[in-house]
Amino acid sequence: MDRSRLEALSDGVFAVALTLLALNIAVRGPADKGHDLWHQLGALWPTFLAYLVSFFVIGIIWVNHHGLVRNIVAVDRTLLFLNLVLLLFVVLIPFATTTVAEYGLRDSWDGRVSVALYAAVFLGMSVGFGLVFEWTLHGKRTHSPLPPERRWAARIRFVGGALVYLVTIGVALLSAVAGFVLIAAVAVYYVVERSSSPSSPVSPSEKVTPAN
Amino acid sequence: MDRSRLEALSDGVFAVALTLLALNIAVRGPADKGHDLWHQLGALWPTFLAYLVSFFVIGIIWVNHHGLVRNIVAVDRTLLFLNLVLLLFVVLIPFATTTVAEYGLRDSWDGRVSVALYAAVFLGMSVGFGLVFEWTLHGKRTHSPLPPERRWAARIRFVGGALVYLVTIGVALLSAVAGFVLIAAVAVYYVVERSSSPSSPVSPSEKVTPAN
Amino acid sequence: MDRSRLEALSDGVFAVALTLLALNIAVRGPADKGHDLWHQLGALWPTFLAYLVSFFVIGIIWVNHHGLVRNIVAVDRTLLFLNLVLLLFVVLIPFATTTVAEYGLRDSWDGRVSVALYAAVFLGMSVGFGLVFEWTLHGKRTHSPLPPERRWAARIRFVGGALVYLVTIGVALLSAVAGFVLIAAVAVYYVVERSSSPSSPVSPSEKVTPAN
Amino acid sequence: MDRSRLEALSDGVFAVALTLLALNIAVRGPADKGHDLWHQLGALWPTFLAYLVSFFVIGIIWVNHHGLVRNIVAVDRTLLFLNLVLLLFVVLIPFATTTVAEYGLRDSWDGRVSVALYAAVFLGMSVGFGLVFEWTLHGKRTHSPLPPERRWAARIRFVGGALVYLVTIGVALLSAVAGFVLIAAVAVYYVVERSSSPSSPVSPSEKVTPAN
Repeated sequence: MDRSRLEALSDGVFAVALTLLALNIAVRGPADKGHDLWHQLGALWPTFLAYLVSFFVIGIIWVNHHGLVRNIVAVDRTLLFLNLVLLLFVVLIPFATTTVAEYGLRDSWDGRVSVALYAAVFLGMSVGFGLVFEWTLHGKRTHSPLPPERRWAARIRFVGGALVYLVTIGVALLSAVAGFVLIAAVAVYYVVERSSSPSSPVSPSEKVTPAN
Repeated sequence: MDRSRLEALSDGVFAVALTLLALNIAVRGPADKGHDLWHQLGALWPTFLAYLVSFFVIGIIWVNHHGLVRNIVAVDRTLLFLNLVLLLFVVLIPFATTTVAEYGLRDSWDGRVSVALYAAVFLGMSVGFGLVFEWTLHGKRTHSPLPPERRWAARIRFVGGALVYLVTIGVALLSAVAGFVLIAAVAVYYVVERSSSPSSPVSPSEKVTPAN
Repeated sequence: MDRSRLEALSDGVFAVALTLLALNIAVRGPADKGHDLWHQLGALWPTFLAYLVSFFVIGIIWVNHHGLVRNIVAVDRTLLFLNLVLLLFVVLIPFATTTVAEYGLRDSWDGRVSVALYAAVFLGMSVGFGLVFEWTLHGKRTHSPLPPERRWAARIRFVGGALVYLVTIGVALLSAVAGFVLIAAVAVYYVVERSSSPSSPVSPSEKVTPAN
Repeated sequence: MDRSRLEALSDGVFAVALTLLALNIAVRGPADKGHDLWHQLGALWPTFLAYLVSFFVIGIIWVNHHGLVRNIVAVDRTLLFLNLVLLLFVVLIPFATTTVAEYGLRDSWDGRVSVALYAAVFLGMSVGFGLVFEWTLHGKRTHSPLPPERRWAARIRFVGGALVYLVTIGVALLSAVAGFVLIAAVAVYYVVERSSSPSSPVSPSEKVTPAN
C-alpha cells in the first residue's frame, strides 16, 4: 500500500522509456529521393534490432522490479532514492539505443564506442537494481526475507551479473558485433529461462529475491 | 491485485502511444512561405485520417485488454513476457502511422508499401494479443474460464482475425487506398459492434473471453 | 473499482498531454547568432502564454473528469469509447497549442486561422466531455443520479458551454487576439469560480454532476 | 482513496518529465564528420551534468510530494488547482535543462541567463509546492495536522527555501558556474540529508509535514 507510488512512478518511467524507444525509428520518407520505402525500411535493420533488444532488457528489469518491490513491507526515503538511481539509467536507454542504431553495428571505432556506451548504460541500470536489492537484504524490510546464509550467494550472483556488462564494455571495444551479440544473448537467455522456470535462481542483471 | 502492475505498465504504454500519435501532426508554420495555414491544414488530411484510425485501433485493443486481464486470477512471468510482445507492437504504431501519413495514401509503390507496413504492425499486435489470449485458456488462470468445447471456436475466430490483417498486407500491395479502407472498416466495425452489444462474441483483432 | 483502468488510461493521457505541451517550448540557442538568450526568451511570450492557457484548460477538464467518473457505478464498453472520443481531442491540444504559438497571435489571416483551430480542438474536447456526461444521465449508472427534472437544465448548460467555443471560432476568424482572450478568460473564470465555490453549478466546458 | 487520481496525474507528470529530460541528450552521430563518437560524448558533459541535477531535483520534489499528499484526508478543487501550479513548473524543467545544457555552463551573458532561467523554474516549482503545503496547514485536511505553534516555523523554513532559489537567480547572473553549483549543492544536500535521517525537519524546496 505504502509502496504504491514507488510502483506508480517506476511503471510510468518504464512505460515512457519503452514507448520513447520507438520514437527514433523513422524513415526519411518521400524526401529521400534516391531510395524507395522498401529499401529505407531494410536499411533500418540495426534500428529495429536495437529496439528489440532494448525493449526486452527494459521488460526484464521491469518484471524483476515487479517481483522485488512486491516483497517489500514498507518504503523509506533511502529506498526511494536508490530506486531513482535505477530509473536514472533506465531513462538513458533510449539515448543509448539510438546511438547504437545510428552507427549501424559497424566495426569502426565509433561503432565499437557506441556498443560500449550501450553496455555501460545497462551496467548502470544493473548497479541501480543491485542497490535496491541490497536494501531489501537488511532489517525487516521484506515479507519473506532472504536467510543470512544465502545473502552472500545472492550478492555474488549480483556482482557476477554486473560483471557480464562490464566485460561486454571491453568486448565491444574490440568488436561491435560481438559486444552487441553478448547483450542480446543475455536478454534472450533471461526471457527464455524465466518464462520456462518461474522459480529459477537469480541471475546477471535480474537479481530476484527468493520470494519470486 | 497481483495484476495491478501489469495493468499499470500496459495502461502507461497505451496512454503514451495514444499521445505520441499526435506528436507527428505538425504544420510547417510561417516557414512555409508558399502556403497559408488553411491549406497546410487541408494538406494534412491523410495525417488526420491515419491518426483517427490508429487512435481507435489502439483504443479497441485497450478495451479488449481491459476485459481480458480483468478476468485473470494470477499473473506469472510467462504472461508478463507475452504481454510485452503485445506492447512491442503497440509501441510501433506511431511509427507506422507517421509513415502511412507521409506517403499520403497515394497509389505509388511506396504508398502501397507504407500501408502494408501499417497492416503488418497491426498483425503483430493481433498475434501478441492472441498469445496473451491463448495463455488465459490453459490451467485455472481465469475467474470464468472458457469451457474446453468453446476453445477451438475462440481460436478459430482469433486466427480469422489475424488473417484479416494478413490479407490486408496483400491487398495494400495492390492498392494503398483499398488496404487502408479495409483497416479503417475493421476499426469502425468493432467500435460500433462492441458498443451496441456488450456481450457480443469475440472477433478479429479483439479476442475477448466470454467473461466480457 | 471497475473504473480503475478507465481512470488510469485517462490520467496517463492527461499527464502525457500536459508534459508534451512544454516539449515545443525551445529557444534556438547559441545557433541563433543575431539574438541573445534574453531576447529569445522574450520573443517566446506567445508560446509561454499558449502553454499556460492550454495547461489550465487540460487541468480543468481533468478536474471535471475526476468528479464525473468518481460518481460512475460501473463502466461499459460504450462509456470506454465515448471517453476515447474525449481523449482524441485532448491529445490534439499540444498540436493546436504549438500552431497558435508559431503564428504569434498576430492578426494575419494565418494567425486568425490558428486561433480558430485552437478553439475547434477545445470544442471537440467539450463535445467529447458532453458525450460522457450524457451517458451518465441514463439508467442507474451513477451513485447519485441527477433527478430527471434537472437533466434538461444540465444539458442546456452543456450546449451553452460548447457554444462558447463555437462562437470563439467565429470571433477568432475576425480577430486572433479577441478569440484567444475569450478562451483564456473562460479558463481563468473556471479556475477561480471552481476553487472559491466547490459546490458551484455546472458550466461551459466543465459539465459536472451534482455529486461534485 | 479520494486522492488517488491526484497522485496518478502527478506521478504521470513526474514520470514523463523525468523521461523527457533524456530526450534531448543526443550525439550528432555519423553526420558529425569532424568528431568521433568518443569526443562527441565528452563534449556532452554539461548535458549529462544538467540531466543528473534535474533528475534528482524532480526526484526530491516527488519524494516530498509523496510524503505530503499521503497525509491528506480529502481532496478539494482548490488543492487540485494548487497542485496544477506545481506541475506547471515541473513540466518546464526539461526545457530549462536543455537550455542550460546548450549554453554549456559558460560564463557568457547567455550562459548566465540560462542558469538564471534554470533557477527561476525551480523557484516556481518551490512556490507551487509551498502553495500545496500551505493548503495542508488549514482546517482538518491532514491525518496528523501540524500544531498551530509550529506553523510559522514551517512557513519560515519554506520562505527560506524559496529564497535560496531566488538568491541563485542573482548569483547566476554574476557567474553561471556559481549559480549551477549552488543548485547542484542544494540537490546533493537533500538527497544525503533525507536518506540518512528520514525524520529530519523540513527544508528549502522540500517542505515536508511532520508526519513524514
